Amino acid sequence: MDPDAVAKAFVEHYYSTFDANRAGLANLYQEGSMLTFEGQKIQGSQSIVAKLTSLPFQQCKHNITTVDCQPSGSGGMLVFVSGNLQLAGEQHALKFSQVFFLLAQPSTANLMCH
Amino acid sequence: MDPDAVAKAFVEHYYSTFDANRAGLANLYQEGSMLTFEGQKIQGSQSIVAKLTSLPFQQCKHNITTVDCQPSGSGGMLVFVSGNLQLAGEQHALKFSQVFFLLAQPSTANLMCH
Repeated sequence: MDPDAVAKAFVEHYYSTFDANRAGLANLYQEGSMLTFEGQKIQGSQSIVAKLTSLPFQQCKHNITTVDCQPSGSGGMLVFVSGNLQLAGEQHALKFSQVFFLLAQPSTANLMCH
Repeated sequence: MDPDAVAKAFVEHYYSTFDANRAGLANLYQEGSMLTFEGQKIQGSQSIVAKLTSLPFQQCKHNITTVDCQPSGSGGMLVFVSGNLQLAGEQHALKFSQVFFLLAQPSTANLMCH
């Protein structure tokens, strides 16, 4: 399968899960996964999901603007996403960008920056 | 050495080279390196530098806002950078973000998004 198509499908799945059932993101991380969120490093699926579900907003909708991907040269795939995050009740969307490092196992090393 | 300190030193070196002597960036890429620039994939040190030196601006200054880094889990280091790019003669700076994937050899897989 085309790597760009894999990246796009993953990203769509990730954000539709984030918007509809944030706790379900646990399936996309493993114990070795790391999330960097606004400078804070969080390790392991359970801690990552605890962080994401405790963010100070509930209903949200991610609109993806760009998805770029490339092989890392060491076995994983780098995916760079930019887009807008619309929070319920807010007039203006926030810009966000996020990087995924996808491994062949269902593991994600993850840099996130809103 | 602390990985965060390595990442910060690399990023400072990369952008000071970009701003002062763009052709010198060739030393930071290898033949296997890839740059994704606004959706276009460019492979190899020579082609990457040809792209960067042909951008439609000469004098510029990158101001770094954030540098996040984490191990990739497969031998490399992910570095996510955001900041502002000030072009000579322009009143407003452009926002940019860039991802580096650093390998122990002086090789860089590189996603860039202005």
